[in-house]
Amino acid sequence: MNSNKSFLRFIPILSWVPQYNGEKLAADSVAATIVAIMLVPQAMAYALVAGMPAETGLYASIFGLSLYCLFGTSNTLSVAPVAVVSLMTAAALSKLDLLTTADYLAAAFTLTFLSGVLLLSLGLLRLGFMANFISHPVISAFITASAIIIALSQVRHLLGVEADGQTVLELLPSLIMAVTDTNVLTLTIGITSIIGILWCRTGLKSLLVAWGLSDLIATILSRSGPLLVTVLAALVAFVFSIDQYGVELLGNIPAGMPDLYFPGFTVEQLRALLGSAVLISIIGFVESISVAQIMAAKRRERIDLDQELVGLGTANIASAAGGGFPISGGFSRSIVNFEAGAATPAAGLFTAIIIALVAVFFTPILFWIPRVVLAAIIMVAVYSLIDFSMLGKSWRYSKADFVAVALTLLLTLSVGVELGIAAGVLVSILIHLYKESKPHVAVIGRVSGTEHFRNINRHQVETFPNQLSIRIDESLYFANTRYLEELIFELIADKQELRHVILMCTAVNKIDLSALETLEKINETLDELGIKLHLSEVKGPIMDRLATTGFFKTLTGNNYLSHNQAVEDLR
Amino acid sequence: MNSNKSFLRFIPILSWVPQYNGEKLAADSVAATIVAIMLVPQAMAYALVAGMPAETGLYASIFGLSLYCLFGTSNTLSVAPVAVVSLMTAAALSKLDLLTTADYLAAAFTLTFLSGVLLLSLGLLRLGFMANFISHPVISAFITASAIIIALSQVRHLLGVEADGQTVLELLPSLIMAVTDTNVLTLTIGITSIIGILWCRTGLKSLLVAWGLSDLIATILSRSGPLLVTVLAALVAFVFSIDQYGVELLGNIPAGMPDLYFPGFTVEQLRALLGSAVLISIIGFVESISVAQIMAAKRRERIDLDQELVGLGTANIASAAGGGFPISGGFSRSIVNFEAGAATPAAGLFTAIIIALVAVFFTPILFWIPRVVLAAIIMVAVYSLIDFSMLGKSWRYSKADFVAVALTLLLTLSVGVELGIAAGVLVSILIHLYKESKPHVAVIGRVSGTEHFRNINRHQVETFPNQLSIRIDESLYFANTRYLEELIFELIADKQELRHVILMCTAVNKIDLSALETLEKINETLDELGIKLHLSEVKGPIMDRLATTGFFKTLTGNNYLSHNQAVEDLR
Repeated sequence: MNSNKSFLRFIPILSWVPQYNGEKLAADSVAATIVAIMLVPQAMAYALVAGMPAETGLYASIFGLSLYCLFGTSNTLSVAPVAVVSLMTAAALSKLDLLTTADYLAAAFTLTFLSGVLLLSLGLLRLGFMANFISHPVISAFITASAIIIALSQVRHLLGVEADGQTVLELLPSLIMAVTDTNVLTLTIGITSIIGILWCRTGLKSLLVAWGLSDLIATILSRSGPLLVTVLAALVAFVFSIDQYGVELLGNIPAGMPDLYFPGFTVEQLRALLGSAVLISIIGFVESISVAQIMAAKRRERIDLDQELVGLGTANIASAAGGGFPISGGFSRSIVNFEAGAATPAAGLFTAIIIALVAVFFTPILFWIPRVVLAAIIMVAVYSLIDFSMLGKSWRYSKADFVAVALTLLLTLSVGVELGIAAGVLVSILIHLYKESKPHVAVIGRVSGTEHFRNINRHQVETFPNQLSIRIDESLYFANTRYLEELIFELIADKQELRHVILMCTAVNKIDLSALETLEKINETLDELGIKLHLSEVKGPIMDRLATTGFFKTLTGNNYLSHNQAVEDLR
Repeated sequence: MNSNKSFLRFIPILSWVPQYNGEKLAADSVAATIVAIMLVPQAMAYALVAGMPAETGLYASIFGLSLYCLFGTSNTLSVAPVAVVSLMTAAALSKLDLLTTADYLAAAFTLTFLSGVLLLSLGLLRLGFMANFISHPVISAFITASAIIIALSQVRHLLGVEADGQTVLELLPSLIMAVTDTNVLTLTIGITSIIGILWCRTGLKSLLVAWGLSDLIATILSRSGPLLVTVLAALVAFVFSIDQYGVELLGNIPAGMPDLYFPGFTVEQLRALLGSAVLISIIGFVESISVAQIMAAKRRERIDLDQELVGLGTANIASAAGGGFPISGGFSRSIVNFEAGAATPAAGLFTAIIIALVAVFFTPILFWIPRVVLAAIIMVAVYSLIDFSMLGKSWRYSKADFVAVALTLLLTLSVGVELGIAAGVLVSILIHLYKESKPHVAVIGRVSGTEHFRNINRHQVETFPNQLSIRIDESLYFANTRYLEELIFELIADKQELRHVILMCTAVNKIDLSALETLEKINETLDELGIKLHLSEVKGPIMDRLATTGFFKTLTGNNYLSHNQAVEDLR
């Protein structure tokens, strides 16, 4: 959409840095602090969802946020680990036969790098429009199903038991088998954490404002619920050494920044992960731009879809190089960044710096974080993603959409995330193509005493046995002309008196080459049957285009400016 | 298109057999004879193109024609070996590492069976509409390129030399290397055959009519050019034992009908051939229905696309079971069948019977057919498929179509048939999706002193700073609403006085669930900016549908019957 076609568009940072000032610095710093408070525990938690060591969540955030700051066009999108993409990462890697942690990390690198390269390539090829073909109801159903799987996968940490699985069908029996092993202390900490986080969200802020704190401070503190709970729990764990009662702790986390990571990859692994990388890229991109567009519109700012692909692509390549996993623009975190007043992508860079400080100086504290607290944070975070309203809405509005929604939901829950989203996207595109292959076309007749023409099936109209009037309500192109051809031949099959077919083209905005050829073929075939083909009310631009071809020379009939004139002429 | 939804539609033979009579029998017998005369040498020749033993061309014809007679809906389509599909078969099988003839035959079985099952499944799932998404210019380019490759691959037989390759890039150097080994007798027979066949096509018929033969007999004899040449050449070969001069003969052909064949298949081979089977099915189907539709229209008959898939599918499964290879409805042969007066699919069955008689009784004659004669028949047959006009036509009419045409042509010639057609289809669908993702939308203003609204970029019109009028010229669905959303937010970004956005919906025939959700999102976002969203001139069916949702309750603005009224109201 950006009309600036210069080189600058590829490096958006060059367009906002010159205007940077103290006011923006202040706004970005505040927003960065709030997001960092939210992101530190979340990033580690989502790393665990992805099956990765906790610290890689921090690395993915540091590298991803920094690169997006250079190449992204949204001032407020926060590109770091997100729930659904982390789940998809775990699902993709679980298909491989990875025995050691080193193997797992290397495969995660391949997946992340591949996904980054895909996003970047789509952006450079300006193929961002392809995201339009993922229907919103399908994405919504997929996110709901993924959130359920994530929440369910965290129940084992809440209970402090062993259980495993990638789908509801695998997780549920596994959990039921293990429920008798529940560690009561773990469960108590977990439930307390959930209540604590929820209270911070609702109760704390009003309390702080009532205490006379400024709205900004109150907001920051209320957003810090997950961090407060984590710090408190770590303190309790440290003071009482609760690991001796069977409560699992996060344990040793290497301090400092990671070395740049490039393990190399095998062709077989590339091939095995390609499909997963495609799906992860699509979902990550669609999730990112959905929230980025809303936020930009609210501030009358602009984002560029193709450049967003470049931003996400480079962020993922950077995450791979930092030993991380696939990342994207998270919905709730970006909204927090937006509401906290982030003015430029620099806010993301500042968040990265704060997280880097945590990774360098605070890892000894991270050791004492009980695993169950991160599970609690995840469960609260994904709960807000669960939304079944799409089922009822699509059922009432369109059964075809309902089929796609229900299929996505069921397959994701029962068979797995990859098959679920792939089936949903395929079915919605198939349904779309099917509808599209039948253009809206009506046989029309004249309303007596007027010059108006209406559908003969819906109105009382007059027709003449020697002519057939057809109104085409859509542009003609290769996907739908065959239907028109079939329809015409079907209609003429039993009309022996017919001498003229008149196509009324008021709503035809385009005729592509296939459609032109089809019209020529229809014209020729009708000619052999002694029937003439006429057009009426063809739009100017189409007339110009058809005139460059020999079409009007071969057309057996005429081209009328008004349909009524055609009907009168040919009676 | 057939409104008869009963069980009968799945077995079309039941609808025409009860009306069968002597007149139709006579017509079908004549047509069957003419087609059989044409098909016997052609079927063997195309078998050799597919890399199969010559007799399998006869078997494929016998089995394919018989089954299509039961399940096909075209009275005149002749389902048997065709040039392009045979070439694709050779290309598909050459990718596998097949050492023995038995392995090759088993792989051909898998490919043919798979292709039949695919076609049958698509038919039973009523997915025939999917053929609409293969654009005609792409198919045309592909057929031209395939014909060139086939013709070039026959040059070695014409010269009587060894040369190999699947593409022009492979064939040309190979032929140039071998040209010095040319067998002059072989070349002489080949060129004589080509001249003979061409003369029969043009000169013989008029000569026969001049001699006083009836038009029908003259037609039959002129169509028999390839057969006459073949028989004459076999006679010469037999009398002079020309094989001792290095002319290659067809050699031993087993007499009789084949046993039913079911070699079983491996999962790896199924997987390796799946992509090829998909491409072969698509091309075979599109080629068949193109000719079937034209012929049916000329006689005011009807064909059913989905049932055609069933007919072709069962014909291919039968061909597999008879030890054959993939088949489809050939263009020129079907036209001959049509022109010779075939009245029902029984003509195909009669052709099958004649060919079966040849397979049982005439194989000793086949031994003496020089290989070069079949090459001559193939070269004459495919020459008529070569048509470069699509290049110029698409260049003049639409550069996007030109890109798809040129790409298909170049890739098919240089890299191979499978990549060529796959790239062509993909690129044309991508181009289509790209165009489709940008609906035709115009910002409009009022023509002074009238109630007409026109595009502000094309006409002198009046607008009001507090309102923005947008005319949507297409249906809204998931593929194009994101663009509308972007456009609206782009347009409002720098209009601080704006209070109303009015969408004129005269040309909107459908609003799917995704589009509804997008409209709700646009409405909400505009609301936060203090801008109201209005609709005007919404069509009745869409009003009804929207009324079932809560949309009009959340809409901040109004729904106007006339756009002018909206503009006046909101000034």
